[in-house]
Amino acid sequence: MLARPVEHIGGTAEVPEVVVSRLPQYLRALTRLSQQGVGVVSSQQLGQLIQMTPAQIRKDLSYFGRFGKQGRGYSVKYLLAELRRILGLDREWRVGLVGVGRLGRAILGYPGFAPEGFKIVAAFDADPRQVGQMVGGIMVQPMHRLREAVLELGVRIAIVAVPASQVQEVVDRLMECGVRAIVNYAPVSAQVPPHVRVRNIDPVVALQSMTYYLTALDGEAKSKAS
Amino acid sequence: MLARPVEHIGGTAEVPEVVVSRLPQYLRALTRLSQQGVGVVSSQQLGQLIQMTPAQIRKDLSYFGRFGKQGRGYSVKYLLAELRRILGLDREWRVGLVGVGRLGRAILGYPGFAPEGFKIVAAFDADPRQVGQMVGGIMVQPMHRLREAVLELGVRIAIVAVPASQVQEVVDRLMECGVRAIVNYAPVSAQVPPHVRVRNIDPVVALQSMTYYLTALDGEAKSKAS
Repeated sequence: MLARPVEHIGGTAEVPEVVVSRLPQYLRALTRLSQQGVGVVSSQQLGQLIQMTPAQIRKDLSYFGRFGKQGRGYSVKYLLAELRRILGLDREWRVGLVGVGRLGRAILGYPGFAPEGFKIVAAFDADPRQVGQMVGGIMVQPMHRLREAVLELGVRIAIVAVPASQVQEVVDRLMECGVRAIVNYAPVSAQVPPHVRVRNIDPVVALQSMTYYLTALDGEAKSKAS
Repeated sequence: MLARPVEHIGGTAEVPEVVVSRLPQYLRALTRLSQQGVGVVSSQQLGQLIQMTPAQIRKDLSYFGRFGKQGRGYSVKYLLAELRRILGLDREWRVGLVGVGRLGRAILGYPGFAPEGFKIVAAFDADPRQVGQMVGGIMVQPMHRLREAVLELGVRIAIVAVPASQVQEVVDRLMECGVRAIVNYAPVSAQVPPHVRVRNIDPVVALQSMTYYLTALDGEAKSKAS
C-alpha cells in the first residue's frame, strides 16, 4: 500500500519519492565500500554503514529489481552500477545556471559537479553588466537567449541562483523551455506542475538536526557544572 | 554494533548522525498528522507516510527512549513534543548571518525561520559598503564586531553566505567565537574539528535524485516513439 496512488512511468510502477531520495545515500556508502576494495556486502553490513535495518534496505531496493541472492549479499560493483543506471548517473547531464551573482559565480567554480556527471554548459543573467562576461570558462548570456541555448546545448537541468523575488518568473521561463528539473537556491518556493521537479535548498532542514548536538552540548555543560 | 565507537554525550550513548538527520523527517510527518487531527499513529501508518518499515522507525526512535506501548501506537502529540524536545526545537535559537550579498539578503528576508524557532539576530559583512545598512530590520555589522555580538546576543548558530574563497576564514573566526553549528551555502567544504557541525548545502545531492525522474521521462518518450 502506498500513500499515493500507483502511477506508471515508462511501464514501471511509480517509486515513492522518499525512496528515490534515499538512493544517493546508498550510492555514497557503496562508493566508499568499492574504494576500500570490498567485493560483496550483506544488507546487514550496508545497514550498519547507514544505520538502516536490512529489511528497510531490501524493501527500498526491491522497487528497482532483484540485486542479490538470498544469503549471498550484494556485489558492490554490480549494485553500484545498477543504482547509477537507475538514477541516470551513468551519463552526462547538461546543466544551465540562471543568476551569475556572487553565489552563481561560486557555483560555476564548484569542482564537484563534473566528477558526478553534471556539466554546466550555459549561464544566464538578467543584468546587462553581467552579460558577455566570461565566468569559469562560460560566457554569460542574456535571458532572452534562454530558450535557444537550452535547446541548442541540450540543457535538462537548471540551477537557479537569483534573488527570491525573481524565482517564480525564472522557473516559469525555464519550464517554457522544457526544463523539468530545477535546483533553487533562494529561500522561497516556486509553484510548479507535478511533472516538474524542484529541489529547494531548505535552510531550516539544515538547521534542524544541528540543534540536537547543541542541546547535547548544553546538557553536558550543565552536568559538569552541577 | 555501530560503525563508530560509542561515545558519551551528557550521559547518553551517542546516536548515529544518520539517525539524528532522519528525525526532522519524522517531525514533518507527525506535524502533518497533528494538523489533520490524528491522535494516535502506529509505526505502520507512520511508515507508509515516509516509506519506512515499522521496524526501522521503532529502531530509530529506540535510541531516544520508549514512546509507545506495544500494539497501542504512538500518541502523535506526545511523540511530536518529545522529538521537538530531543532535537532542541522547543526553544528559540539565535542565529548570526555572515555575508550580506544577494543570497544573504534573501536569507534575512526568509519567513520560514521564525516559525521553526530560529531567529536571525545579527548580520555581518567584510565589505564596508554593506556595514551600517539595515536589512530585514537588522543592522549589518563589521566583521571585527563578530565576537562581541555573538557573546552579547547569544548567537549559537551561524549561516555563512560568503564567497567560496572566504569560507574557511569565516568558519575559523566563528569557531573562535564559540559557534559550533554552521550552515555553509558556498559550494566548498570547510575544515572543522569533530565537535563543530557544518552542514554544507550540497548541490550534487540535490541534483542526483532528480535525474531519476528525467531518466524515467526519457524512457517514457522512447516507448511512446517506438
